[in-house]
Amino acid sequence: MIKMVIFDVDGVLTDGSIMLDSVGVELKRFHVQDGTGIKYLMRAGIRVAFLTGRQSAAVGFRARELGVEDVCQGALVERHGLADDEVCYVGDDLPDIPVMRRVGLPVAVANARPEVIEAAKLVTQAAGGHGAAREVAEKILKDRGLWDSIIARYHQ
Amino acid sequence: MIKMVIFDVDGVLTDGSIMLDSVGVELKRFHVQDGTGIKYLMRAGIRVAFLTGRQSAAVGFRARELGVEDVCQGALVERHGLADDEVCYVGDDLPDIPVMRRVGLPVAVANARPEVIEAAKLVTQAAGGHGAAREVAEKILKDRGLWDSIIARYHQ
Amino acid sequence: MIKMVIFDVDGVLTDGSIMLDSVGVELKRFHVQDGTGIKYLMRAGIRVAFLTGRQSAAVGFRARELGVEDVCQGALVERHGLADDEVCYVGDDLPDIPVMRRVGLPVAVANARPEVIEAAKLVTQAAGGHGAAREVAEKILKDRGLWDSIIARYHQ
Amino acid sequence: MIKMVIFDVDGVLTDGSIMLDSVGVELKRFHVQDGTGIKYLMRAGIRVAFLTGRQSAAVGFRARELGVEDVCQGALVERHGLADDEVCYVGDDLPDIPVMRRVGLPVAVANARPEVIEAAKLVTQAAGGHGAAREVAEKILKDRGLWDSIIARYHQ
Repeated sequence: MIKMVIFDVDGVLTDGSIMLDSVGVELKRFHVQDGTGIKYLMRAGIRVAFLTGRQSAAVGFRARELGVEDVCQGALVERHGLADDEVCYVGDDLPDIPVMRRVGLPVAVANARPEVIEAAKLVTQAAGGHGAAREVAEKILKDRGLWDSIIARYHQ
Repeated sequence: MIKMVIFDVDGVLTDGSIMLDSVGVELKRFHVQDGTGIKYLMRAGIRVAFLTGRQSAAVGFRARELGVEDVCQGALVERHGLADDEVCYVGDDLPDIPVMRRVGLPVAVANARPEVIEAAKLVTQAAGGHGAAREVAEKILKDRGLWDSIIARYHQ
Repeated sequence: MIKMVIFDVDGVLTDGSIMLDSVGVELKRFHVQDGTGIKYLMRAGIRVAFLTGRQSAAVGFRARELGVEDVCQGALVERHGLADDEVCYVGDDLPDIPVMRRVGLPVAVANARPEVIEAAKLVTQAAGGHGAAREVAEKILKDRGLWDSIIARYHQ
Repeated sequence: MIKMVIFDVDGVLTDGSIMLDSVGVELKRFHVQDGTGIKYLMRAGIRVAFLTGRQSAAVGFRARELGVEDVCQGALVERHGLADDEVCYVGDDLPDIPVMRRVGLPVAVANARPEVIEAAKLVTQAAGGHGAAREVAEKILKDRGLWDSIIARYHQ
């Protein structure tokens, strides 16, 4: 049973854009529907972490806004005693492969490199930054039988 | 008869992008043709409101530019004594469903989640941030028989 | 013979995005290949002007970079004694129609509203902000028989 | 054998967007997967250079982040005694043609102007800013028989 979802940031929570301005400020482009999906995961007691190889303050701002506590830049997040097969990892590029090979549910986004898609058990239909994280969140919540009660809350 | 149109912001007036920079400044991406459509609605005496769950100064700037007075962040806009069936609401995600179920014309944008599309009487062809609000504005003005006189003004 | 090309800005030189940040700064998204096309027009002695209904310092920066002198915000550019049929105007929305009806070559971009496309003699294949202005520039230069000599310069 | 790859910036490493704000700051949009490809080229001992006709501090920031030392704005990069047929050049617009005609491997991105595509030996499937540079990097590394060992590193 998946108890933690780790999202690579660039190309997974974003569309891979690295926006830089002429004074060195970087801009990242997240997606609002991904944010809602991540909140549903956390409310269901599933841990969420962001993993990013690049230093980026923007990632920290987005994580804080969503209440995601684990943001690791350059190193793997702590798993708090979770077994590998309880972890889902979502990636798009070659450096994600070693982690994907260890976890229970390795996911590639639609825009992942071919080698990453090969290493995945699940490939999202949505591209990174366009709802891929939302798709993963819904898949996990549906597999756990939790999605219907989330929907029901909005139909009272 | 629709007397008020309420637009959710993220994913409806924008394409769902949440752009954050490395000093915490947020950027929103609206669409120019939506702005014109919103102005036509207001000139026809139809009230327009923006509803957003997230705190965002950018939404305030866009609203002021268009002359939209009702911007509610986190709470539902006041309806000034309007009946529910005189209200149109345009949404894209699950938290929009409770409002959509109460109003006379619930609209989902093309990029809305499937459950939101199910709750809608009308689904736009355009995606959020790419003319969906314009499409809703024209639909309402055409239903009221007001569109031809708007066009005529430009052909004198 | 076309002696002047007037480009509407939002939706024609840009994709219609109105990007606003949380401190009120606006960002516009132009296209590099449009810029080259505009320079070719000016080198061929054809006047170029930008017309924009919205106040925007970003438009001024882009115009200066390209050497475009005529930037009119809210009012029509001066035509320096040109006859209407010597002017090409490129637009995307209803407020562009009155100008388009007067000029010799009214052009609509691919993403223009249907009424604007109806008012146009030429509709670009490219959308605004994605090379529409370049397409217009090349069309005019080819009609004048000037394109081959531009290409030849790069094959010496 | 290709020993150096020169990338035009606007339209090749970016999607051609020239984003300008109302105080004159420019924003460029690079792609994360291109960055990884460029790093693989450099690790394989292949020189990488960025060439840009427009002054842009953002290009300098991206180059420094990737460790690319050769950034030439307005003038051709130094080739350190390399023969023309050891150089690959990737471009999108007419000013790129003279360089492309001299080098061993002239490449056009998918969104290049038709005359540039004609001048190229290779046309990428990906558009500029959407993985075109990554595609070129992989092509060169595969031709040199170096790709498999890069992949192997991630499967240990």
